[in-house]
Amino acid sequence: MFKTLENTKVFRDPLYGYIQVKHQVIADLIDTKEFQRLRRIRQLSGVSMVFHGAEHSRFSHSLGVYALAYKALSDIEILKKTLSEYEQILFMCSALLHDVGHGPYSHAFEHVFMLGHEISTTKIIEGNTEINQVLSKHHKSLAKDISSVILKMNKFKIVEQLISSQLDIDRMDYLERDAFHTGATYGRLDKDRIFRMLTIKDEKVVFKEGAIHAIENYLMSRYHMYWQVYYHPVARSYEIILEKIYKRILDLYKDSKLDDDYASYLKTIIENGFEEDAYFELDDYYVNGLIKRFSHSKDDILRDLCLSFLKRELFDYIEVNTNEEEKMSRLVYEKKLSEYHYKIDQVTQRTYLIEEFDILASSIHILKSDGSIVSLDQVSPIIKGLSTSGIKTDRKLYYRGSHE
Amino acid sequence: MFKTLENTKVFRDPLYGYIQVKHQVIADLIDTKEFQRLRRIRQLSGVSMVFHGAEHSRFSHSLGVYALAYKALSDIEILKKTLSEYEQILFMCSALLHDVGHGPYSHAFEHVFMLGHEISTTKIIEGNTEINQVLSKHHKSLAKDISSVILKMNKFKIVEQLISSQLDIDRMDYLERDAFHTGATYGRLDKDRIFRMLTIKDEKVVFKEGAIHAIENYLMSRYHMYWQVYYHPVARSYEIILEKIYKRILDLYKDSKLDDDYASYLKTIIENGFEEDAYFELDDYYVNGLIKRFSHSKDDILRDLCLSFLKRELFDYIEVNTNEEEKMSRLVYEKKLSEYHYKIDQVTQRTYLIEEFDILASSIHILKSDGSIVSLDQVSPIIKGLSTSGIKTDRKLYYRGSHE
Amino acid sequence: MFKTLENTKVFRDPLYGYIQVKHQVIADLIDTKEFQRLRRIRQLSGVSMVFHGAEHSRFSHSLGVYALAYKALSDIEILKKTLSEYEQILFMCSALLHDVGHGPYSHAFEHVFMLGHEISTTKIIEGNTEINQVLSKHHKSLAKDISSVILKMNKFKIVEQLISSQLDIDRMDYLERDAFHTGATYGRLDKDRIFRMLTIKDEKVVFKEGAIHAIENYLMSRYHMYWQVYYHPVARSYEIILEKIYKRILDLYKDSKLDDDYASYLKTIIENGFEEDAYFELDDYYVNGLIKRFSHSKDDILRDLCLSFLKRELFDYIEVNTNEEEKMSRLVYEKKLSEYHYKIDQVTQRTYLIEEFDILASSIHILKSDGSIVSLDQVSPIIKGLSTSGIKTDRKLYYRGSHE
Amino acid sequence: MFKTLENTKVFRDPLYGYIQVKHQVIADLIDTKEFQRLRRIRQLSGVSMVFHGAEHSRFSHSLGVYALAYKALSDIEILKKTLSEYEQILFMCSALLHDVGHGPYSHAFEHVFMLGHEISTTKIIEGNTEINQVLSKHHKSLAKDISSVILKMNKFKIVEQLISSQLDIDRMDYLERDAFHTGATYGRLDKDRIFRMLTIKDEKVVFKEGAIHAIENYLMSRYHMYWQVYYHPVARSYEIILEKIYKRILDLYKDSKLDDDYASYLKTIIENGFEEDAYFELDDYYVNGLIKRFSHSKDDILRDLCLSFLKRELFDYIEVNTNEEEKMSRLVYEKKLSEYHYKIDQVTQRTYLIEEFDILASSIHILKSDGSIVSLDQVSPIIKGLSTSGIKTDRKLYYRGSHE
Repeated sequence: MFKTLENTKVFRDPLYGYIQVKHQVIADLIDTKEFQRLRRIRQLSGVSMVFHGAEHSRFSHSLGVYALAYKALSDIEILKKTLSEYEQILFMCSALLHDVGHGPYSHAFEHVFMLGHEISTTKIIEGNTEINQVLSKHHKSLAKDISSVILKMNKFKIVEQLISSQLDIDRMDYLERDAFHTGATYGRLDKDRIFRMLTIKDEKVVFKEGAIHAIENYLMSRYHMYWQVYYHPVARSYEIILEKIYKRILDLYKDSKLDDDYASYLKTIIENGFEEDAYFELDDYYVNGLIKRFSHSKDDILRDLCLSFLKRELFDYIEVNTNEEEKMSRLVYEKKLSEYHYKIDQVTQRTYLIEEFDILASSIHILKSDGSIVSLDQVSPIIKGLSTSGIKTDRKLYYRGSHE
Repeated sequence: MFKTLENTKVFRDPLYGYIQVKHQVIADLIDTKEFQRLRRIRQLSGVSMVFHGAEHSRFSHSLGVYALAYKALSDIEILKKTLSEYEQILFMCSALLHDVGHGPYSHAFEHVFMLGHEISTTKIIEGNTEINQVLSKHHKSLAKDISSVILKMNKFKIVEQLISSQLDIDRMDYLERDAFHTGATYGRLDKDRIFRMLTIKDEKVVFKEGAIHAIENYLMSRYHMYWQVYYHPVARSYEIILEKIYKRILDLYKDSKLDDDYASYLKTIIENGFEEDAYFELDDYYVNGLIKRFSHSKDDILRDLCLSFLKRELFDYIEVNTNEEEKMSRLVYEKKLSEYHYKIDQVTQRTYLIEEFDILASSIHILKSDGSIVSLDQVSPIIKGLSTSGIKTDRKLYYRGSHE
Repeated sequence: MFKTLENTKVFRDPLYGYIQVKHQVIADLIDTKEFQRLRRIRQLSGVSMVFHGAEHSRFSHSLGVYALAYKALSDIEILKKTLSEYEQILFMCSALLHDVGHGPYSHAFEHVFMLGHEISTTKIIEGNTEINQVLSKHHKSLAKDISSVILKMNKFKIVEQLISSQLDIDRMDYLERDAFHTGATYGRLDKDRIFRMLTIKDEKVVFKEGAIHAIENYLMSRYHMYWQVYYHPVARSYEIILEKIYKRILDLYKDSKLDDDYASYLKTIIENGFEEDAYFELDDYYVNGLIKRFSHSKDDILRDLCLSFLKRELFDYIEVNTNEEEKMSRLVYEKKLSEYHYKIDQVTQRTYLIEEFDILASSIHILKSDGSIVSLDQVSPIIKGLSTSGIKTDRKLYYRGSHE
Repeated sequence: MFKTLENTKVFRDPLYGYIQVKHQVIADLIDTKEFQRLRRIRQLSGVSMVFHGAEHSRFSHSLGVYALAYKALSDIEILKKTLSEYEQILFMCSALLHDVGHGPYSHAFEHVFMLGHEISTTKIIEGNTEINQVLSKHHKSLAKDISSVILKMNKFKIVEQLISSQLDIDRMDYLERDAFHTGATYGRLDKDRIFRMLTIKDEKVVFKEGAIHAIENYLMSRYHMYWQVYYHPVARSYEIILEKIYKRILDLYKDSKLDDDYASYLKTIIENGFEEDAYFELDDYYVNGLIKRFSHSKDDILRDLCLSFLKRELFDYIEVNTNEEEKMSRLVYEKKLSEYHYKIDQVTQRTYLIEEFDILASSIHILKSDGSIVSLDQVSPIIKGLSTSGIKTDRKLYYRGSHE
């Protein structure tokens, strides 16, 4: 039996009103230094350069995903019946901790330093951390099982699908939360209806037909949030500058020219990969401090990139279709761009969205009134149409223009 | 020069905050008895039987459309420049008055009594009414020109497109307003963006490419509002009962059996078609009073239908595909249903939506950065996909089940 | 044991999202013809003449109060523990039915025909009605006990306080709902906090100190809603015309001049007081139909009043302080106003608000951390201040001006 | 004539929708590095420790105040007429720049380093900065005049009152914005009404009587936001830790023990007071980086304070009334608290709110219908009551408890 708090704890959330915490283990996890670290990592790095309201942290989002897990367990009778108490706790903990391993400016960070956030997340959960201590205190296998959920090891199938699939509580929270903070008019989901229509069949999370319109709407919102918000060229441009800053730091390190001791935690990670203590230090506070510091670096390239970042001198961009390699080469040649000053950014490649629209046919399961299970595209002509037509590729060359 | 008010008048609107009235003619129109009559006609008749919050009137909606016309003229520079003062006034008056001819429970009413609301609207505008007096006082051709806009006579092309097209201020208001009152999560539009991207080219209302996502979102919202709200079977069922009540009244009249003098205004309309004084009397207050009264009628069929309406004993329904005529005939036969007790209701036929998705290719114009104008489907793969796949037909047999 | 539904029923509410119904008895009550009748009675009669969005019905509000009862039982642990299953059902049923006896344009109706809505409510609950049948079927004493709650007989103290006191779920719903529909910016309450701080001590509903700001805010919102919305002179003026219409009908009846058989149900009530069948007929549909009909009455006074009502020709008004009786008499004399054409309307007299601010000191109980219970004014200097200074009286003479 | 942009620029705001920029000078100011720096300074430092959503920056708020200035000039006819074009530009620029001099964790910063943000603001505006260059380019006296507005030199009286008084656009923005992000239910203002009732008389900003309820509501919202949000003990506790960190840094500096070169910009400020280049470096990024760095300091006190800050180990607190000095001294003595580990924090002293309630009587001017101007308290019994009773003092001892 997992201990419950004498008095429910609450967190005031701008989207959900009160978020309730009833279990000791959840309260303890929130208080760990590794979870508190998420306050210091923004959810949407470059996006706030376009949408100034989008300054919220991964802490907010993580609490939000937990809140949806809690709500799912309150609202959906069949979940309460199907999941054991242990699995319910596992579900809530996994929801809370699913992003705990994110680094500062995560996408650029992962890309340059080759350290995926899922791996870091499981290492924080299972390593020598306060989070691990809390989990172990409450149940000996909890840490391991949360990792297995996050890595989708197929051990707790229902919980895994609820946390991460085409339609999961992670996405449901971030779409609404990001829409709220950016001021986007899309992104409001009919969570109540989706939850009400959610049921379990043969260890599969399925949705009754009454959910189809709500799910179509969710997929369209997601589509629009990606193009309007996440893939906004100004946001991309900003992220690319960051990536270049990381890359330059890495290259300076390789050339033994990274001598500032303030960079020591980053060095540790470069040298050893994940390490609890160093990783704990890596957050926006640290990296932003580093960038501010390197805006006075002796290295021209690094200094210049950091100044661009701080003064919001974004990279310019042009569209470059796949058959226009020449156009691109010419520009790179004429402008004498170094590898730190341009990047081809093709959004399709990195868009889970587009891939998902394909896979999606097989992955959002609709339970028909006759008891059969079909994939969404078989009952939604809209989604079927989108799975072939709703693909949009965006390929741009971002490059440092002249700022004087 | 049209007179402006010394002090701007305002109406507090739950969606838009203050709605401002600056022109004498608008203030005068709102005060006419024909416009005030719209307070007594609900916007969504049967829908409130499913969504209890949807109890708002055509008065609210009409003010709302005016408010969007006013906003368009404030926000969109090119409109202010392109439209003369007279056309601006024409635009706002047409927005305000476009629905003034709606009858009580309009769709059923039009269908049974064969009196379209556009015709009634123009007759109210040009006939012997307070509205006509107001318009004539302010400008001699105003009444005639508003009619020409409402009937789409191609005289004031830009104003016509703004008032009624695939993407117009009428739809923009009712989608958001109906969503607000029903509690639907869809239906929030990015009006600011749509207006910001709207421009005029060769007397055409066109939208810059930056509007595409907002328009896609609008079309999807509309699609979902139709299926989730406007075509909800409970709402349809309720409307059908109303239609049958109207039909029974008409048939009793034809058989000279409609002897209640309370029905006199309806009789006038049946006999003479539109007539100002009688039509003014026709509103929800009148029809609801009639239904209450006829719930004690000696005519069994009429009494029974009125009671069903008042006690919310809705018609049952089953799906009947086009190749299932037999199934339907059998049910009608077995249940011994009279013509007042069943109806085949095929939503596609009556759905402007679906038809629109086809026409739409040619009707929402996108202005590309190279100056060319294309139809939306050529630049939006989603809409292209929908124009072939996004069609959904719903054909149901509604019939009086047994209630005892 | 009260029966629960196999599948939870839901109602989509514009304020609360889904309202859930889990018990058979609640579902059955909602389906009765007496409860459905509330769809035909507007919550705020005259107010919609000022705030055009305020067209919602008592049906919406009644469902809303039920929803808050349901929420209270979900959110507040101590309620669940303190109240027996029977009391919980009693609580929810009382919440749902507390307004079921309201007549059309209730305040004017009660005032003229001397039939209070609480009495009618209990007669509907205990009389020969579908509601009574439903209640009796589920539990033999339920009807009687709901009446006792509504009449505040002190039998179920906690339930009574939750339903009707200075801070109850009835007010919480209508303040927010009316604010939502009028577009008022006030009126949003911190329900979550108030519920979270609510507890039970010695059969008293008390609030922990952490609720003080939320309660202050609620009282201020209520104060502002009264003055800005409920007591708006245009709304008052409209109500007064209605009252005069009712009065004229009554007087014509007394003089045996009310010969229209359409008025029969009203006659029954005038003659016999409450009677189930006649009362069921009395709703806005009926009265509005009557007013439309009487707008063609031979009686000049009645016809004229009904026309004013329909054409929104409101009574004028001037302020008349208590020491200005003369001013008033002169105006009445000079304008030759008959008793149907003017009214002194003093809002303080009828304001529960102001009286409540006095009583309030003794009635909202705050539980201090030392376990003692004090009245709100002892711990809130703001409320203490308001209880002496926050009284505002408004005394106006409304009278028929000249309209030609 | 001030130059306008060919195409209006827009910023998407979560509260206001699109914020429009029409003037070149505003667009240029936003692009300066000093204004962009505000992205790196949070609006509510410690508050986000209690309300996790409150992570927005001064950049958002500053844009928001500009947006209200723009709105005021659009909505309020008399402003447009009364203010010259120059004054209008002055108004919008002052709104935008009024907070540009804030330091990181501003209140603590100002308190320890004795450098007020108003002074820094005017030095940035008039000093050797990009902002000054922009202003000078557009008009030679603009920089000086903005300073005079911010310092309230009485030269541009109307603009000064609009920017900073008891009821100004600065407060209107931050109350709503902070409420939005914290999730507080209070804080929604009836801006439309307040603006609509605002007028100018004898160079005074006054409000017509119709604004009284909206202003009462605004004052109550402010009162509640202060107590519920800004003065929340957890937020205070966090701010106090920050203050102690700053203090320890200052003391180490004085003892010549601050040898980390990363601290150089702070040293410059300590030594020389305001200096453009160093001040530009001072932002949350810098201070947070410093705190992270000093969490490994050799100085025990500094390291420990920084760790508390990062791990959210807040100071404990007890209430200490003015006559309980002994109680406090005992605790300080028993716990052996150093000056870095406790603080008496009396909120009344620092509350502008309370002081304002007193001053307020003379400062919010109400224009009566007879043309006379009175102070709000003379026409609002509520405010009169509050000015004597609505004072609440909170005096707490915050101290470092034991964390192990």
